[in-house]
Amino acid sequence: MTTATRPTTPAARYDERLGRATATAAAHDVDALLIGVGPDLDYLTGYRAMPLERLTMLVITPADRGLRLVVPRLEEPAARVGSRATTDVVTWEETDDPHGVVAGFVRAATGPADRGHRLEIAVSDRLMAIHLLPLQERLADAHFRSATGVLRELRIRKDADEIELLRQAGAAADRVVAQIAAGRLIGRTEADVAAEVRERLLAEGHERAEFGIVASGPNSASPHHEASDRVIRAGEPIVLDIGGVLGGYCSDTTRTLWVTGGDDANGPDEQFRHLFGVLHAAQQAATAAVKPGAPAESIDRTARDIIDGEGYAENFFHRTGHGIGLEGHEDPYLVAGNAERLTDGMAFSIEPGIYLPGRYGARIEDIVVCGPDGPIVLNNEPRELHVVHG
Amino acid sequence: MTTATRPTTPAARYDERLGRATATAAAHDVDALLIGVGPDLDYLTGYRAMPLERLTMLVITPADRGLRLVVPRLEEPAARVGSRATTDVVTWEETDDPHGVVAGFVRAATGPADRGHRLEIAVSDRLMAIHLLPLQERLADAHFRSATGVLRELRIRKDADEIELLRQAGAAADRVVAQIAAGRLIGRTEADVAAEVRERLLAEGHERAEFGIVASGPNSASPHHEASDRVIRAGEPIVLDIGGVLGGYCSDTTRTLWVTGGDDANGPDEQFRHLFGVLHAAQQAATAAVKPGAPAESIDRTARDIIDGEGYAENFFHRTGHGIGLEGHEDPYLVAGNAERLTDGMAFSIEPGIYLPGRYGARIEDIVVCGPDGPIVLNNEPRELHVVHG
Repeated sequence: MTTATRPTTPAARYDERLGRATATAAAHDVDALLIGVGPDLDYLTGYRAMPLERLTMLVITPADRGLRLVVPRLEEPAARVGSRATTDVVTWEETDDPHGVVAGFVRAATGPADRGHRLEIAVSDRLMAIHLLPLQERLADAHFRSATGVLRELRIRKDADEIELLRQAGAAADRVVAQIAAGRLIGRTEADVAAEVRERLLAEGHERAEFGIVASGPNSASPHHEASDRVIRAGEPIVLDIGGVLGGYCSDTTRTLWVTGGDDANGPDEQFRHLFGVLHAAQQAATAAVKPGAPAESIDRTARDIIDGEGYAENFFHRTGHGIGLEGHEDPYLVAGNAERLTDGMAFSIEPGIYLPGRYGARIEDIVVCGPDGPIVLNNEPRELHVVHG
Repeated sequence: MTTATRPTTPAARYDERLGRATATAAAHDVDALLIGVGPDLDYLTGYRAMPLERLTMLVITPADRGLRLVVPRLEEPAARVGSRATTDVVTWEETDDPHGVVAGFVRAATGPADRGHRLEIAVSDRLMAIHLLPLQERLADAHFRSATGVLRELRIRKDADEIELLRQAGAAADRVVAQIAAGRLIGRTEADVAAEVRERLLAEGHERAEFGIVASGPNSASPHHEASDRVIRAGEPIVLDIGGVLGGYCSDTTRTLWVTGGDDANGPDEQFRHLFGVLHAAQQAATAAVKPGAPAESIDRTARDIIDGEGYAENFFHRTGHGIGLEGHEDPYLVAGNAERLTDGMAFSIEPGIYLPGRYGARIEDIVVCGPDGPIVLNNEPRELHVVHG
């Protein structure tokens, strides 16, 4: 168990974020920010509700400086406890039309529909169609776009508390990797090991265990393999890609093991050693390339050039990384075509992989923060191939 | 642990469901059903992917009898294993435009845009804005609506395998309620008990523990209370509302406890006994009213009339129930205004509650199937107030 003190976001910071969101929305000519349950709502208010069919929505209308949290009446007490921001709380009854309530606030703030001005509404990326479609119907003259265009500039740069939580989440995941690598693997199913991963993520302080990819033998060539009933055998690799949520922030790390059963004759073959060496060099070079000002796609390019140069171009068929924070995948994405420049405080995965379909594969993944002078690596379990007894 | 055999949906049933979905879409004049990750995709294909920013989408186009599962290339092996239905599998690369790929299939199936015919596109309720907005942009001349209008008539009537899974999920949740009621409660925080609920749901066969409402003392007046650091004391009620997912199907049950610490002087007061007696009568009467042909709202009315008649009209401020299956909340909703008639095979909660703000509250919840001759109740832990030592 970790003994680190877990930072708590001070209530004042939520109000500060709401103020910045309001100002940024106005600067983007957005008439209303409509934020449903999910990471954006968590970021702006601290309120973590379950995303269900009853509408919970933060309604930000810059024109009247409106900050309203619209919630089902039966969740009013939970919302008042859960939200740490200063907003009005507006409740709706079971037979009300909550989407109409939200549309009413937007209309009231922006005045009557006007031919000269089309309403611009920005909605959170996680908002479900069950809510977005009725909102579009009730604001039929409006243009809807993603609120990420407004909020990404806030969320993409992590503050010191956020980085500390990412660090703690990463350290907890590292301990789980070490525990799994040291334990028995041969003769167990992937699914059984995945269940152990989930238990250990919780035991190490995660409040949620989100995923445990345990991809053994030929399954290691499937990047998002679902842990199956395949029984792990000596003489094969295991790609272990695990993550969860700790203090609201996500962990996500990958290490590749090779299980021998204690017999050196079952060690990795020459091709796997070569493949892994190339992968390791690519992952390290990509990490070293992180610095403020570097285009996101250049990190992908750095890893890809090394892998392509060794003849594995066809075998690395996913992007090099994704941002991470309150969401497991968020901006910035390290992918060809994303010219956005890295800045101090961005956090993302660096996770190249090489996969030989039908045979085997490998991946190495760390969470890395772009610091003022270069990379700050949050996963510190050794990255080398873990050749273990199993 | 349960020893019941868990039914597995035969692969042929997915193809049958896809055939019915295609036919129903055509009958509803829907040109394309676009089904993202979530319960609709699970129902139609058996594929349970994580809902992320990379698009996974089942594209059903009745005009060309198209059944295409569009997946990110790195998830192709996982999709081929995970989907049990017969569809084409189409992959997209990291730098492709997956929403454009989907729009292309819709265009190809329906022919060039035609002034005489506006495209009708139906999307799954869980589809996130991050996917819906780009699809709307690429099919700007189309009208988008909820696919639930098409799929609800399939999903709302559970087949025998589905009912058996709901029964097993309910029985597992019942065992957890009994275990918690028999255990130590006084001196522990709500959050600690909620953590035990989650562990026990998993131990009893759930693959996911979704929620554990532990609402003690005055918190029991908050229907969706988030388990807190409040310490449970002798002489107060606890509303225990728990649920998870077993074999893909949801459990959801509520019982109300009263903890005495072994001292009868700490038993429930007269008002609580009265309140609970009214609640119990209302819950039982609503259950008894379930039969094919009864309007959904009549079940709500039955419970509400009894509660209102005893002077608690202001204290029962949520609907009586919600459908349940692959989703925790789905059609049909037992709420005023829903005149839909119950049919054989519908499954839903019956969960009236009475809440005195600042003081205490109670709720009783069972999952009930509408059988051919009346209610089939899937939760069988005693519904009476559980007066326990704690």
